Amino acid sequence: MIIGFGTVGKGFFDLFHEKRAVVQSLGSVEISEIASSRLGYELRPAHDTAERVDKGGKLREEAKDIPETIRRSDADIVCEFTTVNMNNGEPAFSHIRAALESGKHVITTNKGPIALRYRELQSLVAKKGVLLKFKGTVMAGTPSYNILDLLPGLEVKMVRGILNGTSNFILSEVERGRSFEESLVHAQRLGYAEADPTMDIDGYDAALKAIIISNVLGWQDERHSLGGMEISGIRNISPAAGEKTKLLASINEKSASVKSTKLQDGDLLSNVDGVLNALELETDTLGRITSIGPGAGRKQTAQAALTDLVSIVGPLPNNR
Amino acid sequence: MIIGFGTVGKGFFDLFHEKRAVVQSLGSVEISEIASSRLGYELRPAHDTAERVDKGGKLREEAKDIPETIRRSDADIVCEFTTVNMNNGEPAFSHIRAALESGKHVITTNKGPIALRYRELQSLVAKKGVLLKFKGTVMAGTPSYNILDLLPGLEVKMVRGILNGTSNFILSEVERGRSFEESLVHAQRLGYAEADPTMDIDGYDAALKAIIISNVLGWQDERHSLGGMEISGIRNISPAAGEKTKLLASINEKSASVKSTKLQDGDLLSNVDGVLNALELETDTLGRITSIGPGAGRKQTAQAALTDLVSIVGPLPNNR
Repeated sequence: MIIGFGTVGKGFFDLFHEKRAVVQSLGSVEISEIASSRLGYELRPAHDTAERVDKGGKLREEAKDIPETIRRSDADIVCEFTTVNMNNGEPAFSHIRAALESGKHVITTNKGPIALRYRELQSLVAKKGVLLKFKGTVMAGTPSYNILDLLPGLEVKMVRGILNGTSNFILSEVERGRSFEESLVHAQRLGYAEADPTMDIDGYDAALKAIIISNVLGWQDERHSLGGMEISGIRNISPAAGEKTKLLASINEKSASVKSTKLQDGDLLSNVDGVLNALELETDTLGRITSIGPGAGRKQTAQAALTDLVSIVGPLPNNR
Repeated sequence: MIIGFGTVGKGFFDLFHEKRAVVQSLGSVEISEIASSRLGYELRPAHDTAERVDKGGKLREEAKDIPETIRRSDADIVCEFTTVNMNNGEPAFSHIRAALESGKHVITTNKGPIALRYRELQSLVAKKGVLLKFKGTVMAGTPSYNILDLLPGLEVKMVRGILNGTSNFILSEVERGRSFEESLVHAQRLGYAEADPTMDIDGYDAALKAIIISNVLGWQDERHSLGGMEISGIRNISPAAGEKTKLLASINEKSASVKSTKLQDGDLLSNVDGVLNALELETDTLGRITSIGPGAGRKQTAQAALTDLVSIVGPLPNNR
């Protein structure tokens, strides 16, 4: 079942149908229902449901109490795609808890619950023997922390990341000679920045992603929390000409920070421009490895949820 | 069992023991024996075997006929790490065939057999219901074509790659003002280039890797073969000052090439310097994604074989 039918929910719904052949190779997987507090509820949705809603339509039935809908559903997997209050992770947190408590696997693209209440969720996951997947919270579908799935035994010593596309876009514009204010307005006009851009330009969005990466790496203490890490943004930044400045998340076992950082010439991350994201891992067996790609977007985030779906239901047959 | 006990074989042997805890979480996996035409044969090797051989020692018993040793072994997995003749992929090809024919899974880091005789091997794989894994042939342990395992349903439209670290190192030196000849000698002195550097600097090594990537993507026709693709190298190159030139592999469904290519300012691949490798995929759901990291090295290549091992025996438990 899908909870939340905005950009990500609709994107996942469409990608699920576009990549039907792949999904079906895993067995019989269907989207059982969609629930949205704003758009209503629909059981056994038709293939054109996202298209209908894109054109201003609603779901077929009235909205119901969502946690209750989740508990009563006989779906095996709950895909949580609502928008979220970043202070307490609600309503996503309650949705995810309802799903886990009733023995359902969860896929979410919501940073709040994973960054802020990971331990609570993990203890439910352990108790219920289900899976909680959240690839879409960091770099959308672009391989990020999940490249560790390809690297058994590898130890990560340090992480650097460009994890917020909006601020990276603004920095690229500033480098090209625009003022910070002009660049922000430009980003807002293109739909990259929100009317209230605080989350992106003051570093909080990147910080939440840094905390999620820390969680994945098992670095889960005060030093890797919003209260315990250094967070500063890019507001009113005006770097010297020719200088490459990035809003960089830096994480190791003992600390985490998000701050604008001047990069050296030739640093791989210095060419990661515009809305691109990047994650660099310093490791024991490989030294430094880097993954670069989009960090947002309807289809890009839907790919993350599809990746999570296959990791729950799969694996896909693979003869290479 | 391990076949071939040079740099890669010893590196894998050591990494297997270093990461014992990870390997053991998969069940009981042991290195049953080592066979090398040069160093001999050893059943149930002691943990310090690689160290002993590093110091000039040999394996405990006389070398035996290797294909016969493979056929008679009761190992489930054959790790083929011999050096190889690039014209016909021997002796690695015969080793791999013997293993597959006798119903064993194969891990190899040998480009020759996979680039030159993939169809033959795949038909054996299909007939015997075993697995043939070769991650180490492209970018050592750095995630390369295998990031597709993280991206179900994703379609690749185009590939660009910096797949040969030796030539990339030489190009970086040339950019810094050395002549091609000086740079080659420097690379040879550092052990990056062979006495006969043809494979690296004339583009053949990168071409074999391009063919392997094409095989993985299902693009297996004449246009993706050594005879059918354009291959040129970097011999005697002297780019203009400030110009970024890379030996670039470019692959799509209809063609493949390896040639030195002038990159635009800001191209992500233009900062991939020294012995680093990179793979960029142009895809349907994510647009362009890029993976960058080392493409060679004892431990780096061993990580690739460990990745392959886990993908055969695994998967590892994963609760993120």
